[in-house]
Amino acid sequence: MATEIKTLGEFGLIKRLTSNMPMRQKSTVKGVGDDAAVMDFGGKRTLVTTDLLLEGIHFNLEYVPLKHLGYKAVVVNLSDIYAMNGTPTQIVVGLGVSARFSVEALDELYSGIRLACDTYGVDLAGGDTCASLNGLTISVTCIGVADKDEVVYRNGAKKNDLICVTGNLGTAYLGLQLLERERLSLSGQKAGDEIEAFRGREYLLSRQLKPEARRDIVEALREARIRPTAMMDVSDGLSSELLHICHDSGCGCAVYEDKLPINFEAAGVAEEMNLNIVTCALNGGEDYELLFTCDINDYEKLIPIDDVYIIGHITEKSDGCLLIGRNGEQLPLRAQGWEAFKE
Amino acid sequence: MATEIKTLGEFGLIKRLTSNMPMRQKSTVKGVGDDAAVMDFGGKRTLVTTDLLLEGIHFNLEYVPLKHLGYKAVVVNLSDIYAMNGTPTQIVVGLGVSARFSVEALDELYSGIRLACDTYGVDLAGGDTCASLNGLTISVTCIGVADKDEVVYRNGAKKNDLICVTGNLGTAYLGLQLLERERLSLSGQKAGDEIEAFRGREYLLSRQLKPEARRDIVEALREARIRPTAMMDVSDGLSSELLHICHDSGCGCAVYEDKLPINFEAAGVAEEMNLNIVTCALNGGEDYELLFTCDINDYEKLIPIDDVYIIGHITEKSDGCLLIGRNGEQLPLRAQGWEAFKE
Repeated sequence: MATEIKTLGEFGLIKRLTSNMPMRQKSTVKGVGDDAAVMDFGGKRTLVTTDLLLEGIHFNLEYVPLKHLGYKAVVVNLSDIYAMNGTPTQIVVGLGVSARFSVEALDELYSGIRLACDTYGVDLAGGDTCASLNGLTISVTCIGVADKDEVVYRNGAKKNDLICVTGNLGTAYLGLQLLERERLSLSGQKAGDEIEAFRGREYLLSRQLKPEARRDIVEALREARIRPTAMMDVSDGLSSELLHICHDSGCGCAVYEDKLPINFEAAGVAEEMNLNIVTCALNGGEDYELLFTCDINDYEKLIPIDDVYIIGHITEKSDGCLLIGRNGEQLPLRAQGWEAFKE
Repeated sequence: MATEIKTLGEFGLIKRLTSNMPMRQKSTVKGVGDDAAVMDFGGKRTLVTTDLLLEGIHFNLEYVPLKHLGYKAVVVNLSDIYAMNGTPTQIVVGLGVSARFSVEALDELYSGIRLACDTYGVDLAGGDTCASLNGLTISVTCIGVADKDEVVYRNGAKKNDLICVTGNLGTAYLGLQLLERERLSLSGQKAGDEIEAFRGREYLLSRQLKPEARRDIVEALREARIRPTAMMDVSDGLSSELLHICHDSGCGCAVYEDKLPINFEAAGVAEEMNLNIVTCALNGGEDYELLFTCDINDYEKLIPIDDVYIIGHITEKSDGCLLIGRNGEQLPLRAQGWEAFKE
């Protein structure tokens, strides 16, 4: 028997590999299936999340500067901890490097890792550095902390809850498309042309190359005394994340197309590239914005918070997960996300 | 500037990349520089360690069965937690797999991961699975726990402490040599010949392919009320680990050649392969035995514990780190270990 991985897809594969794993340790509060694992060692809750970044899959060193890569590798993990309503405190970094990298190149990578640690106040507490045959491999594990009652899972959304996202969506994806396009056409161009192609698009590029985790939003919600009922970060795409929340919470949702926060610069680039900006917003990944649901009674407290957008509400499970178009048409939400194993 | 990594070596590189990292979080008890990072979230100490395993560097799938690989990937991390005198409780696993792996192959890998979790009572609590361009990448992070006063670091050894190791040394290295030799000569052989070459060497192979972490020793020491003053697991080789302990503890050591625990089967294979068994015992890695120091007053309590061998004692720093030969000759200990970046 040899079943190709792509027949299962990423989530199917994870489910197959990790299902029926017994949790024996009393300290395991939440295992596989959320942004981070949650543990209880007698004090505050300990949160742990890990990400593996592989050259040629998650990043392309032709156009990703090493410093940005180091920064992003950390930030995507911090984002998972914030998405649990926790505070990231430490990271450990595993690094596999081939002989083609110089010490100075790794200094650059680490300057990005250090910058992220500085910016978010986390400690680089350990790691593992080894040689690789080819390519760069970065594994970052982030440890965080939260009070017992603070942790927000994916499974707490309930009927009539507001669905909110932060920032804007699809922008990081369009930044990637721009980078990919210019890379592909670099061969026939002069150096000056590339810069011209990116002029006015610096924001889109920064969204792809140097994303930030929404610590500000987690803090603002805490200050406003809003406890989200469910929360995730948008790494695979809004549709995919929303379907996770609805599945785990046993509910449906209605999301309004005209409520999706879209950056005007992103909209312009989408048009130029013949991409549907709504599709980008629903399925483009790597925005690292927060998607959360909260009680409708929190509405008044929510409104003053900058950069939070209400895009819909939670419904009964039997209502399904729907996108409501500009003319009232209803379309089922589909996860297209980053199913990297599918062709 | 382009400095080749091999000019620094693994430890030099880690030092360069991670030096002067400020520890800002009050919860960070111990950062880079021990078997695991140590955190304090208000209850017990949280321990975190991570390892990155890359195909072609850390394992060769020509002769390493996937189930064994999964088992070993977990065990080497558990070993780091035991080496802090802690109890491993959870793991998170990052997996990068190329299209050449079938779902069934990953089932095999995970059956090994599950077996290790079963055997040591730890929970698989999360992870990250993604596609890779080529090769298999496994990142395992292990979380553990210890009472505040239980944690054993590398820096507590003091003059006259006994130096102890468990099990035997160099055996995993010789197992690897056997596997490498047979692999290299497979082309001209019939299938039956390989099995013949391994007959009677099953123990050596198992030491390389399916190592165990010394939970039993950590438990036995605890029962005997012996608290090691310093402890590490032997992953890079005895010399390398002992030099770490002496460096961090600010002391020297005297280790006796004739006290090194050597397996007779390993000695036979070393002779057959023209390898010096003492060199193998001092510098062969991957035994995952425990190296620890303890107060000389614990001698009586130590003797009844199975599979623990006293190989020397801690001296003044000015005495240096010495191997005392069978005829009393003194040789400085050198770390040859796995300096993977050196040629």
